[in-house]
Amino acid sequence: MGPQKNTYIRISLPAVCFVWQIAMVLLFGIFIRYNEEADAHWVEHKQQHNLTDIDNDFYFRYPSFQDVHVMIFVGFGFLMTFLKRYSFGGVGFNFLIAAFGLQWALLMQGWFHSLDQDTGKIYIGIENLINADFCVAGCLIAYGALLGKVSPVQLMVVTLFGITLYAVEEYIILNLLHCRDAGGSMVIHCFGGYYGLAISWVLYRPNLHQSKHNEGSVYHSDVFAMIGTLFLWMFWPSFNSAITNHGDGQHRAVINTYIALAASVVTAVAISSMFHSKGKLDMVHIQNATLAGGVAMGTSAEFMISPYGALIVGFFMGIISTFGYVIVTPFLAKSLKLQDTCGVHNLHAVPGMLGGFIAAIVAAFASDSVYSHQGLINDLLFPFRLINTFDLTGEYASRTMSTQGGYQAAGTCVAMAFGLIGGAIVGLILKLPIWGDPADDNCFDDEAYWEVRACFRPLDVALAL
Amino acid sequence: MGPQKNTYIRISLPAVCFVWQIAMVLLFGIFIRYNEEADAHWVEHKQQHNLTDIDNDFYFRYPSFQDVHVMIFVGFGFLMTFLKRYSFGGVGFNFLIAAFGLQWALLMQGWFHSLDQDTGKIYIGIENLINADFCVAGCLIAYGALLGKVSPVQLMVVTLFGITLYAVEEYIILNLLHCRDAGGSMVIHCFGGYYGLAISWVLYRPNLHQSKHNEGSVYHSDVFAMIGTLFLWMFWPSFNSAITNHGDGQHRAVINTYIALAASVVTAVAISSMFHSKGKLDMVHIQNATLAGGVAMGTSAEFMISPYGALIVGFFMGIISTFGYVIVTPFLAKSLKLQDTCGVHNLHAVPGMLGGFIAAIVAAFASDSVYSHQGLINDLLFPFRLINTFDLTGEYASRTMSTQGGYQAAGTCVAMAFGLIGGAIVGLILKLPIWGDPADDNCFDDEAYWEVRACFRPLDVALAL
Amino acid sequence: MGPQKNTYIRISLPAVCFVWQIAMVLLFGIFIRYNEEADAHWVEHKQQHNLTDIDNDFYFRYPSFQDVHVMIFVGFGFLMTFLKRYSFGGVGFNFLIAAFGLQWALLMQGWFHSLDQDTGKIYIGIENLINADFCVAGCLIAYGALLGKVSPVQLMVVTLFGITLYAVEEYIILNLLHCRDAGGSMVIHCFGGYYGLAISWVLYRPNLHQSKHNEGSVYHSDVFAMIGTLFLWMFWPSFNSAITNHGDGQHRAVINTYIALAASVVTAVAISSMFHSKGKLDMVHIQNATLAGGVAMGTSAEFMISPYGALIVGFFMGIISTFGYVIVTPFLAKSLKLQDTCGVHNLHAVPGMLGGFIAAIVAAFASDSVYSHQGLINDLLFPFRLINTFDLTGEYASRTMSTQGGYQAAGTCVAMAFGLIGGAIVGLILKLPIWGDPADDNCFDDEAYWEVRACFRPLDVALAL
Repeated sequence: MGPQKNTYIRISLPAVCFVWQIAMVLLFGIFIRYNEEADAHWVEHKQQHNLTDIDNDFYFRYPSFQDVHVMIFVGFGFLMTFLKRYSFGGVGFNFLIAAFGLQWALLMQGWFHSLDQDTGKIYIGIENLINADFCVAGCLIAYGALLGKVSPVQLMVVTLFGITLYAVEEYIILNLLHCRDAGGSMVIHCFGGYYGLAISWVLYRPNLHQSKHNEGSVYHSDVFAMIGTLFLWMFWPSFNSAITNHGDGQHRAVINTYIALAASVVTAVAISSMFHSKGKLDMVHIQNATLAGGVAMGTSAEFMISPYGALIVGFFMGIISTFGYVIVTPFLAKSLKLQDTCGVHNLHAVPGMLGGFIAAIVAAFASDSVYSHQGLINDLLFPFRLINTFDLTGEYASRTMSTQGGYQAAGTCVAMAFGLIGGAIVGLILKLPIWGDPADDNCFDDEAYWEVRACFRPLDVALAL
Repeated sequence: MGPQKNTYIRISLPAVCFVWQIAMVLLFGIFIRYNEEADAHWVEHKQQHNLTDIDNDFYFRYPSFQDVHVMIFVGFGFLMTFLKRYSFGGVGFNFLIAAFGLQWALLMQGWFHSLDQDTGKIYIGIENLINADFCVAGCLIAYGALLGKVSPVQLMVVTLFGITLYAVEEYIILNLLHCRDAGGSMVIHCFGGYYGLAISWVLYRPNLHQSKHNEGSVYHSDVFAMIGTLFLWMFWPSFNSAITNHGDGQHRAVINTYIALAASVVTAVAISSMFHSKGKLDMVHIQNATLAGGVAMGTSAEFMISPYGALIVGFFMGIISTFGYVIVTPFLAKSLKLQDTCGVHNLHAVPGMLGGFIAAIVAAFASDSVYSHQGLINDLLFPFRLINTFDLTGEYASRTMSTQGGYQAAGTCVAMAFGLIGGAIVGLILKLPIWGDPADDNCFDDEAYWEVRACFRPLDVALAL
Repeated sequence: MGPQKNTYIRISLPAVCFVWQIAMVLLFGIFIRYNEEADAHWVEHKQQHNLTDIDNDFYFRYPSFQDVHVMIFVGFGFLMTFLKRYSFGGVGFNFLIAAFGLQWALLMQGWFHSLDQDTGKIYIGIENLINADFCVAGCLIAYGALLGKVSPVQLMVVTLFGITLYAVEEYIILNLLHCRDAGGSMVIHCFGGYYGLAISWVLYRPNLHQSKHNEGSVYHSDVFAMIGTLFLWMFWPSFNSAITNHGDGQHRAVINTYIALAASVVTAVAISSMFHSKGKLDMVHIQNATLAGGVAMGTSAEFMISPYGALIVGFFMGIISTFGYVIVTPFLAKSLKLQDTCGVHNLHAVPGMLGGFIAAIVAAFASDSVYSHQGLINDLLFPFRLINTFDLTGEYASRTMSTQGGYQAAGTCVAMAFGLIGGAIVGLILKLPIWGDPADDNCFDDEAYWEVRACFRPLDVALAL
């Protein structure tokens, strides 16, 4: 094990925060400007040319932006409060790395996606804020696999590299491969899930059982976690539609996600009860597997997958995800030495990957024939027609839909590869003995990094008896 | 009592979930399609004819939709976490039956309200999603009366029949009687409240006092319930305005509901303090009676009830509802053998019924004379003028406003009748000894249906001392 | 100390509530009407003249309104649940005084800002509802300083006077001095903070240490408070942009606030760790100081402060606010005899005051030269150009930007003066022995005003051991 672990971060944490934040001020000063819809000078220009002053795009995106924002901070944050002694770390470190990460995301995504070649500036508006939240989501998913086992300084390293990797894989998938991925099954969930799993695999702790008494939930921490679950579940239609095309694409993405999520809840409950010896439900499944339909609809939510197609996706995702929590996670922990605190394998990695492949199939079967009512069978077999969604114009005009399906599948593989390889490298960096991570018998415990008024904590009473 | 109760639902719950969800997939495949605003093919059609691509209606409805969604899942869900040992069941079963119910609601409401006669399809869009949430709300209200005393399988039966009944009564009230009920005082609250009360009355448990030690709240479960209360309270203006006419109707519904709710809080606090021997406030009243103004404004929120009219409604509803919790619920429990866990009688049934009759009066006094400032007295006495709200055109063109008031009152009676009769029948079905409901000494306890890590539950410590 | 304190409010609380609420009904009946966008008669008028029926302004403001509403009731309410035995009072009294206050705010702000001189009526719409919420925020900030030490009747007095003072100082600052203050650094935070501090200073309790055992948090009450923190943090961009100019002003306010808040989190974490002997984080700082960037951006959010300018503001506010919690609050308590329960000095008073002066500087440096890219240095030094934001037309057309800066600074001083002097007077009124406030050994305890089922409260177990 090397020397005794030391969780003293009084120098390293402030140092990283300050160096980072000062760097952000400088880089924002050099690169970041308001875009023309947010800049008073452009507005004057528009007024002189009798262009309209009001930017509807901002108003149409804004409610979705706020919903996504709630998912990032309350959704992910409270979902991770379920541990009996690590609720501060769950919601608090989620808050820190999200706020820290979104600044870096504005820069990294700006450099890759919206750097103006003439001025060398990044012009930001509401869509950049949404994309920064999306980018951060990938890192928060990875945090789920690491929850309770790493220091806040390590989390900042995870976030720094995670956002950089995200910006690169997103550029490859969306720009070079010209895939569609509005809700991020590939670029967010598949990448983020495997990124966290690879880091956790490298950081394997053989003696983690020494912290076993801290793992698991208490009654009220499970209720706190339901706050996270419900805000994620309710606002997932906004997540999957936030950056889709205006009009029908956004409308369709909302309907598909709403329907898929509803089905996930019902099948997750069924499997949860079926696998318990007395038929009882497990809060872990209700908190997590109910969301799998939203993850898997990320890419295809804006497609013409049809309402019953969305229902089928949600149906199977609820089953697969709950099954993962019951069977796969314990198996991975034993055979692959993979310690996955929140089970991101079952909620993000696998549903995200499957969502990528589902979208590839839907895309490959899309046709641009005009919709015609030729009877029920035909309707059921060929619902996957798409017209404008894939934006196959210009250099992509010759791409057929089956080729597009192949590119979508390739994009999913790119996301997974970035997650696994990037995560392995970051994991090795985190093994350096300088980050202040907790000892094996000190995991899942807020005492390591938080001032806890212990004597008034009801939990300690429960444990003392 | 017959045979010993058995809460083993390992077969029945998964079976119901799977049969149901597979039926949903088939029925969605046959009946449900995107509407023209969400379907890519229609958009192409619109583009060819130079119609606008962007559907503002979707964007104007979407924020309200998400607010209603929050009320259904977080609002109702957390409001029902107040019991000290039944928080999982409160928020968890609410989640299950809402997700389960909204699928059935899309079909049932579709068949009654928007089945296309030519194609035999139901074309869904954002308004259908809002209406499905509304439909589910009726069943969640009924759950409030049953909380802690029924099994999840029974709740799915309650939901299945509840949504069916809702779709029928809604059709009768809105389409046949041509009533207005934008926020659902009649169709949601009055129906849902009496539906739950009738079921609870049929399922009367003479020995429920054996579970008395589980009833009631602990300190933190009351704080959890306030999350539900506040999200319901804050988003009620969206609930009452979500499907009103665009423009002034929606704007007015927001103002009226906001004002009525504010008054309810103040008078609920006053009555709560007044009825306590030491003048102390009771969390039960603050959690519930503060919302009564929103319930009662459901029908008349879009009417020209005037701001001070809304204030008067909220004023009396706060008083009536709190009075109900203090006096009426204990009386009903004793004299009518009506066990109403959450007091839906005081929050939904009575304020919903009164809201229906208030709207009938407002409608009957409406005139379409042009607004004129003829002095204060005239303003105060005749504020109830309406012009377009009632859509009295076509076959309804000859209906006078006083006739409309009569129809509104009749609609309220229809809602109540459907709730009482439907609930009595469903109650009889639920008396069959196959549903896995808990014994009289095992109510209000999550242990029956949930895996609870008991030894870490602070509550057990409290009870053990 | 005079006579023994008596917290019996069974007569005074209902009496104040009823007198107040009846007065509101009468005053609303005399003064308040729907504005033309919410009134059916105006809509008919518009239709006759072929004006559009749909009011986009309502739809563009509505999502922001709901976000602000969430901040007022859930944000402030849950932030004040952090005390171990005063969570009911925190969220419950916040609910009461906000619902009570917003009715009075509609009237007071109406009389000062939108009374129609011809008809003597106040015509209300969505903007009035937002402004009423803002007005209430000032009083809720003041409540933060008084939390646990006053009776609900006293809080209603605080609110009654606070809203009156707010309406006057807002009129002076926005109308007479013609300042801009969209997010209310001056009129809300600076005023509200100093108002609460002045009241608390007058109500100084020399023997408050007798309630020391009730002050402070327990584990789960700190998690509850994080609900408040996060909803405030996430929706602050809506708060600062809710009543800005449509289009670029609103867009820019969102971007600036989002960025400033992100920086505050990082530097608050750094300072919190740095000042703890073992480098541990303190929940008090994470709950509060992370929000300081939003407070300080209140006035200048809509200005062309530039993204890196916003980042710098957030950077320093996180530092200053955390420093305040660590050093200044204990110092004030000792030397100035200022008992500030929530530390509103550090989160509202000082950041609000600094926000006012920052905006004065930004305004003074604004120019209306057309934006030109003359290299990095020029960009960094002169980003503060403004064109339409200040509305310097009509009688203000001759005002230069440096004069405007002077007026902004004067406005900040007006807000502070109103808070300090008004608070001192209200504090003297509250010293009358008729309000039912708790004795020095009975503070921070819900038992005084709430029916608490004590034997089941886990906390009591913890305390009993």
